[in-house]
Amino acid sequence: MSFSAPESLSEQIARYLAQRIIQGQLKSGERIQETRVVSELEVSRGSVREALLILESRHLIDILPRRGAVVAMLTEEGVRSLYDLYIHLLTMLAQNVAKHWNDHNIQPLLAQVHAIQALQQSDDKMAFVESGFVLMRMAFAVAGNQYLADILEDLQPVLHRTYSLAIRRSPHETEYAARFFAGLMDAVLSRNQDALPGLLQDYGRHQRELVLAAMAEEACPCV
Amino acid sequence: MSFSAPESLSEQIARYLAQRIIQGQLKSGERIQETRVVSELEVSRGSVREALLILESRHLIDILPRRGAVVAMLTEEGVRSLYDLYIHLLTMLAQNVAKHWNDHNIQPLLAQVHAIQALQQSDDKMAFVESGFVLMRMAFAVAGNQYLADILEDLQPVLHRTYSLAIRRSPHETEYAARFFAGLMDAVLSRNQDALPGLLQDYGRHQRELVLAAMAEEACPCV
Repeated sequence: MSFSAPESLSEQIARYLAQRIIQGQLKSGERIQETRVVSELEVSRGSVREALLILESRHLIDILPRRGAVVAMLTEEGVRSLYDLYIHLLTMLAQNVAKHWNDHNIQPLLAQVHAIQALQQSDDKMAFVESGFVLMRMAFAVAGNQYLADILEDLQPVLHRTYSLAIRRSPHETEYAARFFAGLMDAVLSRNQDALPGLLQDYGRHQRELVLAAMAEEACPCV
Repeated sequence: MSFSAPESLSEQIARYLAQRIIQGQLKSGERIQETRVVSELEVSRGSVREALLILESRHLIDILPRRGAVVAMLTEEGVRSLYDLYIHLLTMLAQNVAKHWNDHNIQPLLAQVHAIQALQQSDDKMAFVESGFVLMRMAFAVAGNQYLADILEDLQPVLHRTYSLAIRRSPHETEYAARFFAGLMDAVLSRNQDALPGLLQDYGRHQRELVLAAMAEEACPCV
């Protein structure tokens, strides 16, 4: 049995605001006013300021001197940069898992890949998106690089934001993604490290293009 | 002429504490008591709490539930993980610079490599260490990936910490490092992307071994 420590108040506020950004209720460039969050959630100003620092380290907002917090812009260049980096880091993660897995520590990952297959036809697309990130987090324990885990954890919210945008507009994407996870797991299980960069680059390119298409549609709802 | 925004109070406190960790005055596992920092620096508790969150995102401290902030431990496994990741990211950075430099944007980097050569014989070893990080930051502007820049910026303090430890014990290291920077710049200038992974892996391995040796000596000053 494991106990996890209760989240700090600032972490809870950060998660609440992160959800609103990920779900698209707070838009790129929109100001987040400290005083409004304070009165809306009935929390102290100090906790809100801490929550904003947490969100900044998770790439969801920018804190500008004398202007305060604004929701980070999603630009084409930014999305390209994000996926370039993400695929580099995911490849490193997958290669470390391929190197370090054993019959015991791989079990939760196998179960999660099955859970992902089961979810691909579900109407709950957001549950599907989250199931992929759960697999990534399980991989941290096998890969054994805490810095890599921390950095991917900090990138997860902005990836959650971009991928949610893509899935809202391309619901059949889940079938492609479920196939990718199955193929990835095969390569990891056969310790086929050479196959991993290509697999992940294809996946990254595919997801990046979906996100860019969704951003273009959102910018011009007329089409 | 460029104006930079004044640093926030919490950023100033974070920098002050970071310096003390980097210089080794605050040791691995040592507790950082909020109330003590509050009275020592005569600042508010809120600013100190914000500074601690900044230091956590820079991998210098851990904030433990119900125990507060402690200086992050440097372990052998941690240092291996850190340099694995650092070299991956530096390779990505150097490859992007090799791809995107032009006659105009490369000038500050060339000047900085000369400054590094001039500093290698100086007694001010800490100025030398910092000059390498200045080059890395100049590379961000050419490489053009803001996420990569943010993540390397967040890793910089812990790398500053480990490298300072190594240089304090191996002062002649500066000559090796100066040669490395010159060779790296040659490969970048000739857009020789294939040479970069090998060059950077050698450098990473070398620096990692210096750090591990310094850690072993520090753990057993008897030898």
